[in-house]
Amino acid sequence: VSVITLTTDFGTGSPYVAAMKGVILSINPAVTLVDITHAIRPQDVRQGALVLSEVAEHFPAGTIHVVVVDPGVGTDRAIVCARIGSQCYVAPDNGLLARLARRTPPSLIVRVSEPCYWRHPVSATFHGRDVMAPVAAWLSLGLEPTRLGSSMARLTPLDWPEPVQTASRIEGQILEIDSFGNLITNITADIFASDCLDREAVVLYKGHQIVGIARTYADRPQGSRVALVGSSGRLELAVVGGSAAAEFSANIGEPVLVEWRPR
Amino acid sequence: VSVITLTTDFGTGSPYVAAMKGVILSINPAVTLVDITHAIRPQDVRQGALVLSEVAEHFPAGTIHVVVVDPGVGTDRAIVCARIGSQCYVAPDNGLLARLARRTPPSLIVRVSEPCYWRHPVSATFHGRDVMAPVAAWLSLGLEPTRLGSSMARLTPLDWPEPVQTASRIEGQILEIDSFGNLITNITADIFASDCLDREAVVLYKGHQIVGIARTYADRPQGSRVALVGSSGRLELAVVGGSAAAEFSANIGEPVLVEWRPR
Amino acid sequence: VSVITLTTDFGTGSPYVAAMKGVILSINPAVTLVDITHAIRPQDVRQGALVLSEVAEHFPAGTIHVVVVDPGVGTDRAIVCARIGSQCYVAPDNGLLARLARRTPPSLIVRVSEPCYWRHPVSATFHGRDVMAPVAAWLSLGLEPTRLGSSMARLTPLDWPEPVQTASRIEGQILEIDSFGNLITNITADIFASDCLDREAVVLYKGHQIVGIARTYADRPQGSRVALVGSSGRLELAVVGGSAAAEFSANIGEPVLVEWRPR
Repeated sequence: VSVITLTTDFGTGSPYVAAMKGVILSINPAVTLVDITHAIRPQDVRQGALVLSEVAEHFPAGTIHVVVVDPGVGTDRAIVCARIGSQCYVAPDNGLLARLARRTPPSLIVRVSEPCYWRHPVSATFHGRDVMAPVAAWLSLGLEPTRLGSSMARLTPLDWPEPVQTASRIEGQILEIDSFGNLITNITADIFASDCLDREAVVLYKGHQIVGIARTYADRPQGSRVALVGSSGRLELAVVGGSAAAEFSANIGEPVLVEWRPR
Repeated sequence: VSVITLTTDFGTGSPYVAAMKGVILSINPAVTLVDITHAIRPQDVRQGALVLSEVAEHFPAGTIHVVVVDPGVGTDRAIVCARIGSQCYVAPDNGLLARLARRTPPSLIVRVSEPCYWRHPVSATFHGRDVMAPVAAWLSLGLEPTRLGSSMARLTPLDWPEPVQTASRIEGQILEIDSFGNLITNITADIFASDCLDREAVVLYKGHQIVGIARTYADRPQGSRVALVGSSGRLELAVVGGSAAAEFSANIGEPVLVEWRPR
Repeated sequence: VSVITLTTDFGTGSPYVAAMKGVILSINPAVTLVDITHAIRPQDVRQGALVLSEVAEHFPAGTIHVVVVDPGVGTDRAIVCARIGSQCYVAPDNGLLARLARRTPPSLIVRVSEPCYWRHPVSATFHGRDVMAPVAAWLSLGLEPTRLGSSMARLTPLDWPEPVQTASRIEGQILEIDSFGNLITNITADIFASDCLDREAVVLYKGHQIVGIARTYADRPQGSRVALVGSSGRLELAVVGGSAAAEFSANIGEPVLVEWRPR
């Protein structure tokens, strides 16, 4: 059984997604299709890269991920097929795969240029349907990625807001807001987890202070503001039983600081 | 072919759902995955219990339903596997299964405690991905529920707004508002269907009167306010070709009365 | 492998959709289910017909499409099964299939009236679950459509806003707004594509002029207003990297004119 996942900025419920699925099933009717999300903000390559880097790892070896956040559709930006770890990715080469590739360097990158695996006529505005979907379907039938075009040395990098760590603090920012209103930062657990025994973290955000890192939401009373390490290993801010996004009028990109004080 | 359904409050398009699907497919690539809904209001256990009790019955015998509305994630609340009728449920034991269990007492309830069927490391904030998804996947491969942990006597009950029936009337409330703006009440057809031959129901809501129970929406002219028994056997209020939610500025929990007058 | 698609106005995340899927899987557990969209505006038959006519063609031969936009549910409007090209459709006979049938006349139309293929009891308000879903499931198992009822001569037509073409211009309108805010018109490429060599199209909308037809979005600078032929072969208006819907405060039904001037 082959699995193809789809991640796009087409909007939840967009029939454009269904067009891609129809194209895939016309080539490989036995494939298992899974939506990762279609709620990527329009043309937000960074959000696409983040979601993919956190979700793809949970899928089985051999999974083929199609990612369509493609503001440059129809221009000379490349479409690539990359093998990263045990999985395969088909996406425009605009940074979407950069977070994944940073963790695990691709073992193969191919520029998709062989039109015999495409749907024709190829539109100028929907390569998700006409190029990426059919290419993924052929891959799911066992096509060697090298048949899709010639290999490339590296993927286009992605501008990414890395946290800044100094002796006394970490300067990060809000990276994402989830559907519960939890604020997910770019500060990963490995940065501050090592030195929390004799001192306590204080998280500063928009003039508010949250002292200490909770283990889970319900460890604190309803309505409390908590900082914790979420399920993706990132520092997040939450309100127990409520929405931190609403309570803090939060926006993506706002700075979050972590400092320490003795316990 | 095994079916696993997913019901969560993660939000439509949430990549958290996809993480669960990836975990499931990594264990059982041949399973059929069906989304019931991911639009349960955040942490609204009652809405989750309602949806599940109305939809689960339509699925084939042997279906495994995973339900993640889990405000107490990471605390000592149990995760349970319950066999109810011919189907199996995996959920936090917080009332989510109470409506189903009230209709059909579970033939087996197991407290999920055996970590060898979980994903590791287990996060403190996402047991849907790390405990419930893998457990459901193993069940879909034929694992006996008794292997998941020790049996329990009963499920946690759920506070539920039952309608109050007196000699002259029924006092109910708005339980749910659907995407058409129909107002679905907690008054089920069996309560008032038996005695409608010589007298006519009058539905009272927010100072408005609707006389008589329609058979279907289009039985009345466009724009009419109608009361009818919907497809789940519940009294509902609707506006033909419009939205009762908008017209009445409706809110969940508002009282709805049914009285009778001679025909 | 059989494919059944679902298109409804139930709303994304509606559990009503899941009820239909449960009914289908109870009859044919091996079927592949694909959502086309559930975001059709409530009771908007025209939008349903449009989506279906643009997406269905991408699915494999033998696909069965179930379409439930059904303001007349429970009245004497027919439910039909139609074979159009290599695919099969199950829908209320209210115009939903009219766009498809206009392009490819149905080779068979059957009025669905044989209750032995339905779910019982049949509700008066949800024929999607009780009639159309089970009928589609039986078809996916190989049931001959002629077993569902007696044949009909023609489908109910649909009132459709056709563009008006004169010697000097085309008068069209906004037909749909996609999730990127692109404005999709009822003017199809075949109308004006033939005569663009020596003259240039000027698109007029709400007092604005867009000169020339772009090939793809990113052919023009960020923020530019562009007119182009989208992936469904329709003239559309877009803002590069932005939302034409927001910039123009666009509404469905607003007039769009195409005129020409010499190059």
